[in-house]
Amino acid sequence: MKQRKGSLFVVSAPSGAGKTTLCWKLCDSLAWIKHSISYTTRSPRPGETNGVHYTFTDEDEFRSMITEGELVEWAEVHGNFYGTSKKMIEDMTGAGFDVILDIDVQGARQIKEHFPDSVLIFVLPPSMEALKERLAGRKTDSEDVIKMRLQNAIGEIKEYKNYDYVIVNDSLDTALKEISSIVIAERAKISKMEHERIKENFLKL
Amino acid sequence: MKQRKGSLFVVSAPSGAGKTTLCWKLCDSLAWIKHSISYTTRSPRPGETNGVHYTFTDEDEFRSMITEGELVEWAEVHGNFYGTSKKMIEDMTGAGFDVILDIDVQGARQIKEHFPDSVLIFVLPPSMEALKERLAGRKTDSEDVIKMRLQNAIGEIKEYKNYDYVIVNDSLDTALKEISSIVIAERAKISKMEHERIKENFLKL
Repeated sequence: MKQRKGSLFVVSAPSGAGKTTLCWKLCDSLAWIKHSISYTTRSPRPGETNGVHYTFTDEDEFRSMITEGELVEWAEVHGNFYGTSKKMIEDMTGAGFDVILDIDVQGARQIKEHFPDSVLIFVLPPSMEALKERLAGRKTDSEDVIKMRLQNAIGEIKEYKNYDYVIVNDSLDTALKEISSIVIAERAKISKMEHERIKENFLKL
Repeated sequence: MKQRKGSLFVVSAPSGAGKTTLCWKLCDSLAWIKHSISYTTRSPRPGETNGVHYTFTDEDEFRSMITEGELVEWAEVHGNFYGTSKKMIEDMTGAGFDVILDIDVQGARQIKEHFPDSVLIFVLPPSMEALKERLAGRKTDSEDVIKMRLQNAIGEIKEYKNYDYVIVNDSLDTALKEISSIVIAERAKISKMEHERIKENFLKL
């Protein structure tokens, strides 16, 4: 019988909402979901492993992936490139794994265009106050820098209506339970059923 | 602020799939979901409480509810009437509770017509063998009776494609986790968000 295809979950949030921790915790808690691995041209940071946190590559190779149309989305941030390989997602979901992609609102839009069945989840911080505190960061940052970060966050939050689900990250445990529930429920959706198997198992005497 | 409205979950299954236990366990495990209470003209069985398991009524009153259009669905089974009050569902969801309705495939269709936002969940038995065993029941039943029960079950299972979700009740714990996930995920759906509250809390500096 044909292997059941996995689903693609796209998670976005303004910085400070706790999205990254939530995504990794989700992968720890459900055996069948894997974190997508982005390609990047930036250097590995201490503790980062090639092929686990990122696939590290150089600019020439990255540019050739763009030219060949191998990336479903990509962006340049502070002079470094980041991108997602179409084939990686197709291989992982094709092998039956659900895949989680932790990405900003622009990237999410591109993913949804290419993979219309993907499930988009937006993570909100517990409150605006909590977001302000997180964005204020180190005391050395100027008022202007903090204000800019806050404006960026609001710009991102405005996009939440394009998502399928919204989670308020009030407590990590509750948010983890909610995101796990979205993933588990998705597998029970009628559109994800193996109708052939049901027909074979249940509709014959 | 306006009270957030609850959702209506409709659960069907062929007899022998373990639907009733699953629905009551779900209500035990999530504080905000309540079991719908059907009206019936049959007499209470030992252990059944009026207003908890059923609202017990007489045929005159039941017929007047039909005439007044107060029932969203009703059926006559072995000379007894069973029905669901529109107002009860609207009152419970209006008070912010999710409501679970344990009902057959015909009833589910009527509910969906009247409440198009309701979420339909179909519960399958672990296997056809397991279903056969359950339906065979007491050894005093004739071959013909058993065969008829099995045909009825298959007739019901054929309707599963009209449902939003399908759960295979292989183990009660797993099935309970799946149905809870569907209920939790539904609350995080963008269509169920309180957009005013999000706007108020997050989109103002």
